[in-house]
Amino acid sequence: MNEHDADAAEELADRVRTGDLRLYELEDHADADTAAAARRRLVEEHSGADLSTTAEYALDAEQASESAIENMIGAAQIPMGVAGPVTIDGGAYDGETYLPLATTEGALLASVNRGLSVIDDSGGAAARITKRGMTRAPVFRVSGIAEGQALADWTRDNVEKLRAAAESTTSHGKLMDVTPYVVADNVYLRFRYDTADAMGMNMATIATQAAADVVEAETDASLVALSGNMCTDKKPAAINAVEGRGRSVTAEVKIPREMVEKTLKTSPEAISEVNTRKNLLGSAKAASLGFNAQAANVVAAMYLATGQDAAQVVEGSNAIVSMEAREDGLYAAISMASIEVGTVGGGTKLPTQAEGLDVLGIRGGGDPAGSNADALAECVAVGALAGELSLLSALASRHLSSAHEQLGR
Amino acid sequence: MNEHDADAAEELADRVRTGDLRLYELEDHADADTAAAARRRLVEEHSGADLSTTAEYALDAEQASESAIENMIGAAQIPMGVAGPVTIDGGAYDGETYLPLATTEGALLASVNRGLSVIDDSGGAAARITKRGMTRAPVFRVSGIAEGQALADWTRDNVEKLRAAAESTTSHGKLMDVTPYVVADNVYLRFRYDTADAMGMNMATIATQAAADVVEAETDASLVALSGNMCTDKKPAAINAVEGRGRSVTAEVKIPREMVEKTLKTSPEAISEVNTRKNLLGSAKAASLGFNAQAANVVAAMYLATGQDAAQVVEGSNAIVSMEAREDGLYAAISMASIEVGTVGGGTKLPTQAEGLDVLGIRGGGDPAGSNADALAECVAVGALAGELSLLSALASRHLSSAHEQLGR
Amino acid sequence: MNEHDADAAEELADRVRTGDLRLYELEDHADADTAAAARRRLVEEHSGADLSTTAEYALDAEQASESAIENMIGAAQIPMGVAGPVTIDGGAYDGETYLPLATTEGALLASVNRGLSVIDDSGGAAARITKRGMTRAPVFRVSGIAEGQALADWTRDNVEKLRAAAESTTSHGKLMDVTPYVVADNVYLRFRYDTADAMGMNMATIATQAAADVVEAETDASLVALSGNMCTDKKPAAINAVEGRGRSVTAEVKIPREMVEKTLKTSPEAISEVNTRKNLLGSAKAASLGFNAQAANVVAAMYLATGQDAAQVVEGSNAIVSMEAREDGLYAAISMASIEVGTVGGGTKLPTQAEGLDVLGIRGGGDPAGSNADALAECVAVGALAGELSLLSALASRHLSSAHEQLGR
Amino acid sequence: MNEHDADAAEELADRVRTGDLRLYELEDHADADTAAAARRRLVEEHSGADLSTTAEYALDAEQASESAIENMIGAAQIPMGVAGPVTIDGGAYDGETYLPLATTEGALLASVNRGLSVIDDSGGAAARITKRGMTRAPVFRVSGIAEGQALADWTRDNVEKLRAAAESTTSHGKLMDVTPYVVADNVYLRFRYDTADAMGMNMATIATQAAADVVEAETDASLVALSGNMCTDKKPAAINAVEGRGRSVTAEVKIPREMVEKTLKTSPEAISEVNTRKNLLGSAKAASLGFNAQAANVVAAMYLATGQDAAQVVEGSNAIVSMEAREDGLYAAISMASIEVGTVGGGTKLPTQAEGLDVLGIRGGGDPAGSNADALAECVAVGALAGELSLLSALASRHLSSAHEQLGR
Repeated sequence: MNEHDADAAEELADRVRTGDLRLYELEDHADADTAAAARRRLVEEHSGADLSTTAEYALDAEQASESAIENMIGAAQIPMGVAGPVTIDGGAYDGETYLPLATTEGALLASVNRGLSVIDDSGGAAARITKRGMTRAPVFRVSGIAEGQALADWTRDNVEKLRAAAESTTSHGKLMDVTPYVVADNVYLRFRYDTADAMGMNMATIATQAAADVVEAETDASLVALSGNMCTDKKPAAINAVEGRGRSVTAEVKIPREMVEKTLKTSPEAISEVNTRKNLLGSAKAASLGFNAQAANVVAAMYLATGQDAAQVVEGSNAIVSMEAREDGLYAAISMASIEVGTVGGGTKLPTQAEGLDVLGIRGGGDPAGSNADALAECVAVGALAGELSLLSALASRHLSSAHEQLGR
Repeated sequence: MNEHDADAAEELADRVRTGDLRLYELEDHADADTAAAARRRLVEEHSGADLSTTAEYALDAEQASESAIENMIGAAQIPMGVAGPVTIDGGAYDGETYLPLATTEGALLASVNRGLSVIDDSGGAAARITKRGMTRAPVFRVSGIAEGQALADWTRDNVEKLRAAAESTTSHGKLMDVTPYVVADNVYLRFRYDTADAMGMNMATIATQAAADVVEAETDASLVALSGNMCTDKKPAAINAVEGRGRSVTAEVKIPREMVEKTLKTSPEAISEVNTRKNLLGSAKAASLGFNAQAANVVAAMYLATGQDAAQVVEGSNAIVSMEAREDGLYAAISMASIEVGTVGGGTKLPTQAEGLDVLGIRGGGDPAGSNADALAECVAVGALAGELSLLSALASRHLSSAHEQLGR
Repeated sequence: MNEHDADAAEELADRVRTGDLRLYELEDHADADTAAAARRRLVEEHSGADLSTTAEYALDAEQASESAIENMIGAAQIPMGVAGPVTIDGGAYDGETYLPLATTEGALLASVNRGLSVIDDSGGAAARITKRGMTRAPVFRVSGIAEGQALADWTRDNVEKLRAAAESTTSHGKLMDVTPYVVADNVYLRFRYDTADAMGMNMATIATQAAADVVEAETDASLVALSGNMCTDKKPAAINAVEGRGRSVTAEVKIPREMVEKTLKTSPEAISEVNTRKNLLGSAKAASLGFNAQAANVVAAMYLATGQDAAQVVEGSNAIVSMEAREDGLYAAISMASIEVGTVGGGTKLPTQAEGLDVLGIRGGGDPAGSNADALAECVAVGALAGELSLLSALASRHLSSAHEQLGR
Repeated sequence: MNEHDADAAEELADRVRTGDLRLYELEDHADADTAAAARRRLVEEHSGADLSTTAEYALDAEQASESAIENMIGAAQIPMGVAGPVTIDGGAYDGETYLPLATTEGALLASVNRGLSVIDDSGGAAARITKRGMTRAPVFRVSGIAEGQALADWTRDNVEKLRAAAESTTSHGKLMDVTPYVVADNVYLRFRYDTADAMGMNMATIATQAAADVVEAETDASLVALSGNMCTDKKPAAINAVEGRGRSVTAEVKIPREMVEKTLKTSPEAISEVNTRKNLLGSAKAASLGFNAQAANVVAAMYLATGQDAAQVVEGSNAIVSMEAREDGLYAAISMASIEVGTVGGGTKLPTQAEGLDVLGIRGGGDPAGSNADALAECVAVGALAGELSLLSALASRHLSSAHEQLGR
């Protein structure tokens, strides 16, 4: 920051100190970089912190302040790496790619890398999207259960009207269906949209507001909240694990027995046993919605590297792992119920995140529409599959030797 | 990158191209910056991406490569801002502070900021840790249920022996208790540790390995996996929501009725109603472990800003919100069951994340030990409370006007 | 039992003692009463028990042995009583009725009776069915995810073909929809049927077998199990709590403030507070699918009294209670997601159970078809609502006095 | 009913008709049989039902009216049968026994019988109790989180005082521990008791009331409800599935490969596969707390036959099944987290139910105390294991042939 800019920041900071401006008003009185600089001064004064590294951001502060953050002071930097390459035979993704991951957890990339290497040596992973749809579920208050039942019926009969309203707000979004749920004098309408290559939360919210206006106009129901928590966004809810949200995606690989033995130093049977005792029975006993070892690690790291919403790691962890020992080797699969990703909008516009998507070659709108976001979900699933394979085979390998030692006693 | 460095990177990249080196071996043959540069070249070639912004990192590549990431290519940059200040009357945190948040979701900081402002005007928030303990739950295979029952009994009788082994591996960690769970011929032992100011996953894992060695040495049980998924780490499991993991923390505030009406433009009754219909009944119907509106947003943003593990946002979202209308105003509280945070180790050592902790004034080990991590959990809870207040009161305010319009028809 | 019959029983028992017959073959060699008598002798000998009361059954052993039980020795007798009368304004039930309940838990009927009395004095309860459909979800094994995705698509495209097969097996059942779920190389198809006045599990199973045959004939999928546990029958599964099974039914009542105060000795506000702290927040913290106080008590007692399947009490307890304090009194409602009941078939044919249905006036097929089972679900919901009202108001009343005492200290 | 009794009943009924008496007051004015007869008349008049079979009860109406039911009109009769015999090598039960089951679901006993037969031929089942304790969890209201934290601490420090109060109310119950949970301004204290041979809900409730009085006397907390739903009684709550309630019990059997092939017409591998695809993966996808095929069927039938609380079938279904194919055969186990049973008190005093317990030879208090209830839980687990084995092997057998047919196409 040069002297002139520093002066401008100091001046701006002073207007906050004197009560002339509020901290969030600075962008109205200066460019975004100066506003961030002024804020850093104020926060540094208040806390005694030195924010000089936070200041070294390589993003467009103007753009970030407009769409990604308020009260900006700079950027947090998360180490980014790559794992792979791996060949993916997906419904949308077809080819060989590195996977970008951003994390602060040592050993994660090494683990994923090992897994991808085995997958690739086995001919690559297959992946498919089995369900699609971003949801928003407003809650309406009705006068009682008779009106509630009537609203549920009305909704089923007026999907076209709701669709017209919802789709009037968007050029990309398509309303797929609306499902009513009644609890006491509340009716929750779960709207599900095809949001193409956008993660789609904003699109779904705006469209649902328009549809909710129709409901309020044509019935006696009163909108309590545009999200009634049956969407469910960013909460560990069974509805997402069961019905899916965003993309439901499965990735799978068949690993020849010889490779399991030589490369992974274990057997299909041992890996399957660990999966059963840990991922299935252990998760069952913990009353978990996640039947996996570390899917969230991969989800978080790939979300951060590609500009996804970090809070949606929550439902990204709704994943079930299957490891089946067969005569000719290991069948390994992970089914992720609610991978909510996009390749346009939101954090994908930030420069390092855009580069992350470019590593995968799927930045921006896909052709056909939605295929890039499909492809991203498939890549995440393959990465998560690699993480499972790597971790479970390491455990199986240790367990095998441990068991041998036990027997030797 | 100067010409000399570029040459070194190119040379290194070439050794990968020719098969002389593997992508993950580069740090053995060059400094970390050069290794990252070489990798970028290779990934750029492979993908066609331009990774020039990813290259503009402001962190110590050597340090990052040693403890936070492998196969590094640079850094992802997440916009960081502040909300507040807010006064916190915590069991560990006492004073006024800004909260650092890193996010790509527009409007989040504005929302938290509004909430904190109301909290601060009400005299600040109280916060308390109500339970502590990082857990690791290995799964052992036994010969059958009789041996399983015997192992459960043995464990209860030999806690001191297990403690000695576990604590021999750490100068900070203390074993609090061990709980056995039996499923068929599997015994899961859930070890719970006081890990002071560290998030503690690594500490708990190493200590538990030592304890597991004792179990294997002294009984016929065989260790299948050091984590049997009853820990439960990074999965949406009820065991964490019920029993807690890391810190269980509650934050609360009492907002005078007048302030609810004038500032939030609504009433305590309306906010309470929205909370009931959305956060309680809606979440109940969705079979959710999260009874809140957007706790994960705040958890994710504060975790990213302070070097926490982004994948642990999963269990960070196990939060229950209570909003009670009282004669004199609104009682608002959020109880978060499993906030897994630390102020030493892991991502807290990275420069921008260290600065994030410095904004809160709680980087490094606390005095007494554990008080800084306690304080961080309290700050997260206050931030999450602000997010709830802001969102629910906005909904209540709109619902009130909508209801009025309805009545006017 | 006269001497002749006793001799016949002894002779039959002897053939088992000598190994000539198996215990379950007796009905092939004697009438059902004699077979039961013979079995009692053998069991008495083996255990030393005296089964003379078990022998005093008042049901048709022939009929019971054909459709309700094998290896019959007699009958268990559960005390039966009535609560009410109460006026129900239902979608299917309209009028005043006693509710029959069979239980061994003292105080239950008294509690329900108190609740019904208040409901009746408030003008009765309203009740509505908000969703219908008995489900069966076979699991198919496919060769991999590509085939899995194809099967899901095939299913969506071939509902008519599946319907034809399914409905060919039944004169009453109608296939409503089929929803595919994919997990690894498994595809679960959740068939949902309108089964009219039958609970419908058998009907759904037989119809689904026919549809599964079509799937196997026309695709490469292989049926693993006719129930793949996503139905979900008799397990506490979120899918039923969210999506419903059998009937989703809500009952509600508005109780004038004066009546709450005079009869229930408490206030709407106090009842609402207890509901929030116990049924909502307490259940949330317990990670429960049931947000109620004692719905299962009423479900179990009414199921036993009317010939329903006692094991389906499990999902009958998926109920959410709402208690809202309003200016003019209390709004109380219970929403039960999965009440699986019938008025034809199964245990409804047994004499005491048939009489239980006659108390309600809804034995046999309804007009229109399904209306009797709808009515039964409404009656169950009203009974459960009464149980909640009674228990919560008692707690609220005690809490009020306790709170007063506290204040008085 | 003779003429004199009929007259007395008519007279009593008339006093209700004229408003002189309420329906529930009849036992104050006549013996229990006459009261029931009078009620039947009134209900018959009201409904048009003929309650003559309900009237043919073989239980002591006086006793039933005092402890098991109010407003009695007679009894519901559920067909009762036996399965077995089977040899059980339990921690408490040791020997060969028939299992009594009461049900209206045809084919259930046949299924359990087949399973028991295979178990017995394999040398019998082992069973063990792995955890014990009946729980009651009152909810207290506190002034805020600071007081909440203090109450949690106070509780941990005053267990002895709470124990003294709790145990003063009972000669059999022992307080095992108290666990505090804090949600906003609510503190839930989960009391866990050893209730010996009683199911113990009443004992725990009374003891907890005494302890709660101490809490109210010595702290500022105010009791809201003696059950705050974290007990959790009769609701499908994860806390019971994870932590257990009543008895946690596992039963297991090893079936030689030859027997699987000859008797069950399938293979250990095929049974294990069905268990994985149905009970584990299917239940996981349904977000279930029950990972079994039909445990609730057996739980319900044995509970009805032995006088247990039918509503507790709900948590009785929290069961996880493991089926492991081994070289020498099949290892099969079921782990049931929350089997709440007793051999004294409640419905066990009714005559047919007492006879059911006599079939098992464990009526009344055990020696040592608690051993009879332990034994009953073990018997239930063995019955449930038999049900799983029978059903899963039937599915596996059909799947095997179906798979063969598929291959033949």
